[in-house]
Amino acid sequence: MASTEVTDDFYKRIETSDELSAKKRAILDFCQKYSDRKIALVTSGGTTVPLEKNTVRFIDNFSAGTRGAISAEYFLSHGYKVIFLHRHKSLAPFTRHLTGFGFLDCLKVEADGRISVIDNVAPTLRPVLDEYNKVKERDDLLRVSFISLSDYLWLLREAVQILNGHRSKALIYLAAAVSDFYVPDEFLALHKLQSSEGAPDLKLELVPKILAPLVKQWAPEAFTISFKLETDPTILKEKCRRALNTYRHGLVVGNILQTRRNVVYIVTADEDYAIETTDVEINDGVEIERKLVADLGHRKRLSSSFQRIDF
Amino acid sequence: MASTEVTDDFYKRIETSDELSAKKRAILDFCQKYSDRKIALVTSGGTTVPLEKNTVRFIDNFSAGTRGAISAEYFLSHGYKVIFLHRHKSLAPFTRHLTGFGFLDCLKVEADGRISVIDNVAPTLRPVLDEYNKVKERDDLLRVSFISLSDYLWLLREAVQILNGHRSKALIYLAAAVSDFYVPDEFLALHKLQSSEGAPDLKLELVPKILAPLVKQWAPEAFTISFKLETDPTILKEKCRRALNTYRHGLVVGNILQTRRNVVYIVTADEDYAIETTDVEINDGVEIERKLVADLGHRKRLSSSFQRIDF
Repeated sequence: MASTEVTDDFYKRIETSDELSAKKRAILDFCQKYSDRKIALVTSGGTTVPLEKNTVRFIDNFSAGTRGAISAEYFLSHGYKVIFLHRHKSLAPFTRHLTGFGFLDCLKVEADGRISVIDNVAPTLRPVLDEYNKVKERDDLLRVSFISLSDYLWLLREAVQILNGHRSKALIYLAAAVSDFYVPDEFLALHKLQSSEGAPDLKLELVPKILAPLVKQWAPEAFTISFKLETDPTILKEKCRRALNTYRHGLVVGNILQTRRNVVYIVTADEDYAIETTDVEINDGVEIERKLVADLGHRKRLSSSFQRIDF
Repeated sequence: MASTEVTDDFYKRIETSDELSAKKRAILDFCQKYSDRKIALVTSGGTTVPLEKNTVRFIDNFSAGTRGAISAEYFLSHGYKVIFLHRHKSLAPFTRHLTGFGFLDCLKVEADGRISVIDNVAPTLRPVLDEYNKVKERDDLLRVSFISLSDYLWLLREAVQILNGHRSKALIYLAAAVSDFYVPDEFLALHKLQSSEGAPDLKLELVPKILAPLVKQWAPEAFTISFKLETDPTILKEKCRRALNTYRHGLVVGNILQTRRNVVYIVTADEDYAIETTDVEINDGVEIERKLVADLGHRKRLSSSFQRIDF
């Protein structure tokens, strides 16, 4: 079977969510409203793989959604409209700045009964709030959430196929940490696995590589960026290069779990190089995503198929 | 082997965290400070079971930590000092009231530049903030977090053994959703599992029943409440009864995933009964944990071994 047939067959085996059509509608409306604008689809956070139909246990992928949430802000600052396809409750653009805060610890009751933000937090919060309100007022950002692997895969296909109408004005930034494995519906236990029956022997199956139909069929003119996360530095570059040779999309961003805040590797058809932030920069609050998103703009302009588009 | 030996052997096979000693110190200080007060240890949220040493993938248990976070508030309102042993980033007492809010959507910039909470949110927030500040000022609540199953198990044992000094003034409320299965350290892959090597066949092992040594050895005089969560209503009561017969602790609270906000089953040595909230009550904001925690106080007084203690 060709890879696209494998994928069609796979989609028949995973459940759709009741909320799919409403979310698809929201994406369609957003893309139609901004039919002449450049749009970035940013995926973010991990997917779950349920181990029971009435799900108590699931396999998850480590991801707070940091890369995707930060990158979405920088795409917005570069003039993109952004569809933020993210794991429910993972980090989100703007609100992510508040996760270190104990919200209740930042509030005080004033003499007149109003509740206000305490003085030593307000200066940090103010620019975030202003930027958030600007984005909200201009309707620059559409937030769409998923939880499970199948939620994600259905939403991704719908979103990418809709974005195909934007041709080379679409950028697809696949930062989500998507499971490579799943338990097909027909093997799922209905109820919670019982410990009295001993430890289960979990039969996982490989998820087909969605990048193949995404690049070839769903949105062939979009500039697509995929990610590779590894923990073993010795295999990273080779795996990035192999992915690019296989799918022939825009470029691959490689990163190592332990150093992902400090360095990413860019692998394009012609070259590969690292983008880094120094410890001094990190102390000064420089985020590697700022450099990464700026570099992607440069790459997109260089890419001959996309010369019509300004980043 | 006796169950306690099984447990000791098991503890040798799971990793301790670097933060264990600092957290143990905090629990010890809290218990010493309140040596003459009743203390509730409330566990909350799910545990992770890593599938790799450099963890990218893990098995998780469905739990937002709602039951534990709400119950902790009611224990505080009943005059308990509370140790809240919770999954990192799960719901917490007081801040849990804010999860429906988009925080940034609730703030506005005033004419004088101050940031304040908008008028239609302030009345809801005010009593939560007041209560939070009272608890904080009186130092009623100690928050200790875990992520993995082994973090949880080590912390639980330390906390319970320390609480043993409180004898019957200790209440142990095991609301956390703890994995029944794990992958022993010696079988853990060092690096991220590679999809190129096919789908892994996961060999899980059963976690020994920690309730056995907890009740018999670690804190035999504490009033211990365990939970059973099932998705199949036909097996719930029997499983609760069997647990109580096996461990002979205070009581078991049974609940069904789909109806857990509306009904819980209490199984004691002498009887079993349901505690329910009607739809009208739920609409009025009545939380089932209010009834549950009040009922536990009643049970604790009835329990002959604990008659010395006022709830």
